[in-house]
Amino acid sequence: MINEAQKRQLALNLHSIGALKFGEFTLKSGIVSPMYLDLRLFISYPKVLKSVAKLYAQQLANLQYDRLAGVAYAALPIAGAISLELDQPWIFMRKEGLKKEYGLQKAREGSYKKGETVVMIEDLVTRATSRLEAIPAIEDHGLVVKDAVVLLD
Amino acid sequence: MINEAQKRQLALNLHSIGALKFGEFTLKSGIVSPMYLDLRLFISYPKVLKSVAKLYAQQLANLQYDRLAGVAYAALPIAGAISLELDQPWIFMRKEGLKKEYGLQKAREGSYKKGETVVMIEDLVTRATSRLEAIPAIEDHGLVVKDAVVLLD
Repeated sequence: MINEAQKRQLALNLHSIGALKFGEFTLKSGIVSPMYLDLRLFISYPKVLKSVAKLYAQQLANLQYDRLAGVAYAALPIAGAISLELDQPWIFMRKEGLKKEYGLQKAREGSYKKGETVVMIEDLVTRATSRLEAIPAIEDHGLVVKDAVVLLD
Repeated sequence: MINEAQKRQLALNLHSIGALKFGEFTLKSGIVSPMYLDLRLFISYPKVLKSVAKLYAQQLANLQYDRLAGVAYAALPIAGAISLELDQPWIFMRKEGLKKEYGLQKAREGSYKKGETVVMIEDLVTRATSRLEAIPAIEDHGLVVKDAVVLLD
């Protein structure tokens, strides 16, 4: 678990690079949130990304899983950084992979075996709609989504 | 520069995970190549990806640039790993960003200023066609593509 001091430091880091914004934001799910986390900025600040990866790693420490999973595009740099931090393999779902008409065999990248369990790497718990789209797409490949880890909830 | 011993070790590592295949492969450019490098497997082998990132880092050591650049999807995990290795920011071009009809403002991820120089992170020099597609898309954003670094040529 992330402790209070870590949360404060994280919020300061994210705010300093402009990734954490306060205000009134209507999320994809329709929920109005008092803050917005723009993960897209992480790739411009590798040091911040590395510290974020370490926080996710802490949360992943007590989970059992075969692979990490990220959904394109925003989660990819984060999932990649966590994978390097933990030396754990990951897979990713292409954006097109979330649409039924797209050939499933091309929907994901990374090798895996059927029945393996994955943990989804996500940004905010409020992105629940995105997750509801992604889970069936991942499970269509024979993988089992066991957990989802978010940075802030 | 990568020396001969490093090249041999790299080839062994890549071959052992099935990422480097020998045979006859017709590339996107129409060129028939005696080998094929499947970058998609890297995300399943974080240790190999880290060693590959170190080799790219060596090649980048003497170049002057503002950001690294990768084109979706194959180059993203590599560019991300190099960024963390070197503590250098990167940007990426979405796959849709290579198509003219797609809104340019959404074509790339990561912050940058106009006039900044980028180095493209690529897999093989033989992927020249992909590069020719990507360079105008990147330069349309006001960035200057100064160099391209490949793992094997």
